[in-house]
Amino acid sequence: MNVKYFMPTRVVAGKGCIVANASLFSRLGKRALVMTGKSSAKKCGAGADVERALAAQGIACGLFDGVEPNPGIANCRAAAKAARAFKADFIVGIGGGSPLDAAKAVALLARNELADEAIFKGDYPNAALPIVAVPTTAGTGSEVTQYAILTNDAIESKSSISWDGCFPTLAFLDSSYTVSLPRGTAVNTALDALSHAVEGYLALKSDAWSRAIAYEALRVFGNALPRLADGYNDEDLRSELLLAANMAGVVIAQTATTIVHAMGYSLTYFKGIDHGRANGLLLAPYLDFIVEARPQGVREVLDALGCRDVGRFAELLGSLLGERESISQDEIRKFSAIAIKTKHVVNTARGTGKADIESLYAKGLRAL
Amino acid sequence: MNVKYFMPTRVVAGKGCIVANASLFSRLGKRALVMTGKSSAKKCGAGADVERALAAQGIACGLFDGVEPNPGIANCRAAAKAARAFKADFIVGIGGGSPLDAAKAVALLARNELADEAIFKGDYPNAALPIVAVPTTAGTGSEVTQYAILTNDAIESKSSISWDGCFPTLAFLDSSYTVSLPRGTAVNTALDALSHAVEGYLALKSDAWSRAIAYEALRVFGNALPRLADGYNDEDLRSELLLAANMAGVVIAQTATTIVHAMGYSLTYFKGIDHGRANGLLLAPYLDFIVEARPQGVREVLDALGCRDVGRFAELLGSLLGERESISQDEIRKFSAIAIKTKHVVNTARGTGKADIESLYAKGLRAL
Repeated sequence: MNVKYFMPTRVVAGKGCIVANASLFSRLGKRALVMTGKSSAKKCGAGADVERALAAQGIACGLFDGVEPNPGIANCRAAAKAARAFKADFIVGIGGGSPLDAAKAVALLARNELADEAIFKGDYPNAALPIVAVPTTAGTGSEVTQYAILTNDAIESKSSISWDGCFPTLAFLDSSYTVSLPRGTAVNTALDALSHAVEGYLALKSDAWSRAIAYEALRVFGNALPRLADGYNDEDLRSELLLAANMAGVVIAQTATTIVHAMGYSLTYFKGIDHGRANGLLLAPYLDFIVEARPQGVREVLDALGCRDVGRFAELLGSLLGERESISQDEIRKFSAIAIKTKHVVNTARGTGKADIESLYAKGLRAL
Repeated sequence: MNVKYFMPTRVVAGKGCIVANASLFSRLGKRALVMTGKSSAKKCGAGADVERALAAQGIACGLFDGVEPNPGIANCRAAAKAARAFKADFIVGIGGGSPLDAAKAVALLARNELADEAIFKGDYPNAALPIVAVPTTAGTGSEVTQYAILTNDAIESKSSISWDGCFPTLAFLDSSYTVSLPRGTAVNTALDALSHAVEGYLALKSDAWSRAIAYEALRVFGNALPRLADGYNDEDLRSELLLAANMAGVVIAQTATTIVHAMGYSLTYFKGIDHGRANGLLLAPYLDFIVEARPQGVREVLDALGCRDVGRFAELLGSLLGERESISQDEIRKFSAIAIKTKHVVNTARGTGKADIESLYAKGLRAL
């Protein structure tokens, strides 16, 4: 039994949890920079709740609402400049993965002068500002991870900051924020979270602790995903998905992700396919690929999901994905050449060559 | 969904994990006070591993090997004096629940001047010293909780320090330390951990997150306990029990314990019955009592354990407990009067009166 477990974030979940637990903010300082995308934090009500909680604690509140989708370094540097100008004591990120990951990068950059090439290297001189994460999607699990994943034009893909200083101090989960999600976003973010649980369960870095949490997340998904596919959007379903995504986040904080994520990054970077959807497209071929190396592990994943075999799992995914995007042979070659160079390959439970990756792309999308 | 989850301890598990991860100590300071009981830390090899790891990091190491079983305030004050005299930067507790809980109390007392009556009140002015926990039994889960449970003569029972500052910074789990445990200790500590998982699953403070972890711990126990009852003592079994006890500790860090623990304290204080055994004696009658209020929850506990009904669960416990201690009617009345006053009552899933507690004592022991 080799196990490592570390997840220091305080998670508070429930309807109205931000306002009800406003006093938790006061431990973090007197000035907060709130970071959001263009509009979703406003639309779902999370922004107003955070403002109300901060005001109740007498905390001054600045706003940076310019986080871009799949944010890059320049976007984060602009926000870090705003954080310093505002003299922020802590950062509150509200939104999907983009604002949350940007908030972490900004918490780091506000306290550390780093050249572009040093940003993804770890080992930073100064502690980050404390981070509060308010997810408004049930997907990334970023609220409970040490990762900030940014678009990195230098490698035409995404790169990860992976640093314990990026664990949020606080995460607030309120499923009322996810009820207003468009169906497409709800599905895509659920696919991202599912991918975390599946990849985490089977990752070479997985262990008894992380598999235990992943198993529970998969059980919830097994129950929730068919209802999501059937078009349900009730409070219970939203709440289950938010918790499962959170658990799946705790899992990848321990295990990291595998080849699915590395492959998905190219689909997002070059073809603009949503991150969660990109993973979802690849997930059934991935299970089929892994089964040879880890028959027992794949069996457990399927059992937890209530799927009798990979075929049934593929059907479930199919009902969520609808029509698949096409991919050309040139794209397959180009994306595979990028994915094979990532550290995700060595965390994948079956030895993975470039031809394997090409085959997974061809099976996951409509190969032209 | 109302959920609160917080467990900031870094858990590192595996054979040889202390020496292999010695560098983690160096973040905590230059002077460590190691706290142990009389001999078990030496016998099992944990003490030598800690000394070696500290020496490798150039950390000065003091020793307080006078932690008593079920330590009280005076014992902890003596150790806190030693910690201050040694100018300890951090405390390392090695042992079962007694040294670990004492280490936490000492980490608190070394930095806070507290009158006896203030010790259990929380809200302490100064941060505790950092704590490293090395369990040598698979029982208390103290390595991942905020609790330090001390004998409190003022109330003729045990009282809890419950404070986030008492979460260890680091916990090292190495099942080679538990292989040398006498069978009685192995059984009693397993019963303690089982009690944490069962009580935690059914506690009023339980939630989806804590139940998920408890369920996994119960699954492991369902597999491991029959082998323990059959006299197995292999590495795999020890390792499974240590991980399950750890998970069960994470559970009660979220949920606290219920009436079983409150009742058990009197059996230990007045009759000298081991803490884990005391809980084990009461656990089957407790499930039988709770089932009326929480039929579904009890069903899930039994399913996770692989027991078809409470009767089968009682048999499993019986095979571990052997002959039960007797209890007089006077004892039943006296102990029940103490237990009914505890906060554990309001965390118990079924409304619990004094007569209920008396009945549980009578069913758990041999009533005279």
